[in-house]
Amino acid sequence: MTENEFLQSLAQRFPARNPVLHGIGDDGAVLQAEPHGRVVVVTDMLLDGTHFRLSEITPALAGRKALAVNLSDLAAMLAKPTAAFISLAIPRATTDSTAFLQSLYHGLQELADEFHCVIAGGDTNSWDGPFAINVALTGSPLSTSIPLRSGARPGDLLFVTGPLGGSLASGRHLTFRPRLDIARWLADSVSVSALMDISDGLATDLPRMMQASGTSARLTAADIPIHSDVPPDLPPALRLQAALSDGEDFELLLAVPPAAATALQAAPEGLAFQQIGSVEAGQGITLLMPDGQSSRLPAGGWQHRL
Amino acid sequence: MTENEFLQSLAQRFPARNPVLHGIGDDGAVLQAEPHGRVVVVTDMLLDGTHFRLSEITPALAGRKALAVNLSDLAAMLAKPTAAFISLAIPRATTDSTAFLQSLYHGLQELADEFHCVIAGGDTNSWDGPFAINVALTGSPLSTSIPLRSGARPGDLLFVTGPLGGSLASGRHLTFRPRLDIARWLADSVSVSALMDISDGLATDLPRMMQASGTSARLTAADIPIHSDVPPDLPPALRLQAALSDGEDFELLLAVPPAAATALQAAPEGLAFQQIGSVEAGQGITLLMPDGQSSRLPAGGWQHRL
Repeated sequence: MTENEFLQSLAQRFPARNPVLHGIGDDGAVLQAEPHGRVVVVTDMLLDGTHFRLSEITPALAGRKALAVNLSDLAAMLAKPTAAFISLAIPRATTDSTAFLQSLYHGLQELADEFHCVIAGGDTNSWDGPFAINVALTGSPLSTSIPLRSGARPGDLLFVTGPLGGSLASGRHLTFRPRLDIARWLADSVSVSALMDISDGLATDLPRMMQASGTSARLTAADIPIHSDVPPDLPPALRLQAALSDGEDFELLLAVPPAAATALQAAPEGLAFQQIGSVEAGQGITLLMPDGQSSRLPAGGWQHRL
Repeated sequence: MTENEFLQSLAQRFPARNPVLHGIGDDGAVLQAEPHGRVVVVTDMLLDGTHFRLSEITPALAGRKALAVNLSDLAAMLAKPTAAFISLAIPRATTDSTAFLQSLYHGLQELADEFHCVIAGGDTNSWDGPFAINVALTGSPLSTSIPLRSGARPGDLLFVTGPLGGSLASGRHLTFRPRLDIARWLADSVSVSALMDISDGLATDLPRMMQASGTSARLTAADIPIHSDVPPDLPPALRLQAALSDGEDFELLLAVPPAAATALQAAPEGLAFQQIGSVEAGQGITLLMPDGQSSRLPAGGWQHRL
């Protein structure tokens, strides 16, 4: 397949539609912004061997994940997706690059269609390195005010939208459903102080929110929901650690004023919010253990070094 | 350097400013669209060993080129840049990743500042593969009508904005100046039928424009400007081939109605437009040689296979 043939097949497969005025086939895409005129942009690059292993999964699942993690970022910005831009580095050694691209775009398209997101452009390359995919997504705010990481205030309560841990080991990171339904409901129903998605694990992401907000947090260990993907026969301390630090959960982490907690508890069927702690003045994260002891999380969580 | 420290240094170095309402530091960026509400998005991924060789150049030049090729795409859409999103895959074997990132962002920042583009987000990863960088850029249209590749009409005249060939061999592809000054002048002054930038070489990109427009082109070989980077002692046929097919020129290719040609010829000092041929009905590209013979370019130009 030549590059032109591939581009033409993409342009036919992904025609421009509202709010994309011009999509695949030119030097860039043109979008019509919503009347209030704000545009949200997110981007994430996923790499073979780091974010998935192409030796173990289909290209479709890799494509799906690359779009899903970006949709999760949009949910964390209380925005709905509008257009997706797919950049690819395909290994020259790929035995059947046409079949590879078909599978990859199948995974992308299925999720894009589900969330009414137009694939509107990108860039496809081949090289001697491993597979890499970058997705850039534009979105439109669902709410007039966009809650950032920096908005948490002492007195706020902390919630997560689902159980944590075991995502990588179970493969859940490849098939999770980005929390855009929750984002839409939050935008309509709840005053949120601060919001982000949990991609590196609660123990890494919560400190980021607290540092951005200039606040500290108290977590109640017994309230942190542990996913059924975390092996039940692990000792309790390791199960807790899995929920805090495995990462790749892609649940939302919210700080809300106490008055909003009632709304969260009365959320419609299927939208679950679990209170895990509260925001206080000061710095750092305190974890209150079931035995009444408390411990401090490392200031920056467990980060990878660059 | 931890990931948090790096993100904080980026957020300080690249503060949000108009039209970016929120930049680095959250799950996404928020931009304010212009009153007419259209947003242009371009993206390009550049790979070590394909688009540059990090063994031979500084990370600054790699970063500069990654932004420059995207700025060139925006120029081809008659748009001015607003925000840039930088995704990186850094080899784990990099001996000093802090110095690497400093140099890379220095190259990005210098060009971004020159064109008033806010670096508003991105994603930084390390892996066992070679260096890869993706840039996604948002832009704001400079004109109410955006000329696409598909707008050329029989009777239009074809122009390029500068001499072609020798870009890779000379290193010009690392230091070229994206034609945003020309884009701004065109938006204000000329009715353009079709526009694109020449990244894969005139012999590949012109057929794309003609195919998108459903038209053919006649080129006069003697009118195609050959860059001084093409060795002067090459035989004329090879010099012409270099101008047609070396690629990485990042000049603009325009089709304009005959009435607009006068405006191009009267362009201000420093904006050069060279007429190279004309648009006709039909298909394919005919090249009129100095000896009066004519030859046909291969239908798809010289494309790389995926």
